[in-house]
Amino acid sequence: MENNKRIEFWFDFASTYSYLSAMRIEVMAQQAGVAVDWRPFLLGPAFLALGWNDSPFNIYPPKGRYMWRDLERLCDKYRLVFKRPGKFPRKGILAARLVCANEDARWVPDFVRAVFRANFAEDRDIGDRAVIAEILSVQGLSAEDLIVAAEEPANKDKLRRRSEQAIELGLFGAPSFIVSGELFWGNDRLEDALAWLS
Amino acid sequence: MENNKRIEFWFDFASTYSYLSAMRIEVMAQQAGVAVDWRPFLLGPAFLALGWNDSPFNIYPPKGRYMWRDLERLCDKYRLVFKRPGKFPRKGILAARLVCANEDARWVPDFVRAVFRANFAEDRDIGDRAVIAEILSVQGLSAEDLIVAAEEPANKDKLRRRSEQAIELGLFGAPSFIVSGELFWGNDRLEDALAWLS
Repeated sequence: MENNKRIEFWFDFASTYSYLSAMRIEVMAQQAGVAVDWRPFLLGPAFLALGWNDSPFNIYPPKGRYMWRDLERLCDKYRLVFKRPGKFPRKGILAARLVCANEDARWVPDFVRAVFRANFAEDRDIGDRAVIAEILSVQGLSAEDLIVAAEEPANKDKLRRRSEQAIELGLFGAPSFIVSGELFWGNDRLEDALAWLS
Repeated sequence: MENNKRIEFWFDFASTYSYLSAMRIEVMAQQAGVAVDWRPFLLGPAFLALGWNDSPFNIYPPKGRYMWRDLERLCDKYRLVFKRPGKFPRKGILAARLVCANEDARWVPDFVRAVFRANFAEDRDIGDRAVIAEILSVQGLSAEDLIVAAEEPANKDKLRRRSEQAIELGLFGAPSFIVSGELFWGNDRLEDALAWLS
């Protein structure tokens, strides 16, 4: 049965605040009777369009220092495990391509959470093909086949187009949510975005 | 009686999200048994330290477009009047100096709210001395005396030092809240900041 209440969840696997929303959104949306459209994209081009060639948390040290402390506090509040990644931002492109190529697959939400957990709770390198392959395998999936398919030119193009579309939609950060044409930015707007539908 | 639970509310009269917190903080803090320390400062120097010579909402158009829509939605949510100012940002320096010079005066919270309302609900020029004088007069205060005292060199210095102190404390935007040495940034962290004390 098609759910006519939907929330688009735009996220980047490298994004700290996307971790918080990725772990929370499915249960919250379910309680609100809303279906989630998982929309991985690459923040890089959106940041470049603003003149940033790195995460603003790296470019602006006071923002970065604050973000890490804030993230720690929020993980406590949401009871999420947090371990500050040894490298930031990590490359989320392979994981994003995998979701892009398999959008409607039942395993996607679990995969998304496992990748975010690897990055922000386990300090593993999600840019490493072997790490992603292991996450897929643990879910009982054929890692190699899925990765090969995700790296087909047509799917690479799909992610590239989606990242351009993000800019056209007015996105400038992640996570972002779109409900009924309304854009909400930031993990702290997830509740408001869901409430918008009711 | 001294209240040992305190929240420092750092704000700039030109800041859109500071409007939301300024209108909400006193009632919320009272309910939480927390005293408010009103800390007006100038965001300009903090922005300059990040390399911005204007509001980031003007420098980065997608952020600006989003902010105005977000503000409109949030004012609806909080039942606050909102009228987009014809000019942004407006100069909050005189109002900030007045609060700086009269920190413990009983009339400060009402004055702060009246100035924010003038800027963001009535589209009046809070940089205009006559507008500020009228706001003071309506409160039954001696506008001219207060303005002259606020513009004494010692008080100008006080605001300048406070704006430098903001940078030293790690502030990079407004509103910001400090409770027990913890920094919280953004109107959407006001609830968290108060909860931190309990």
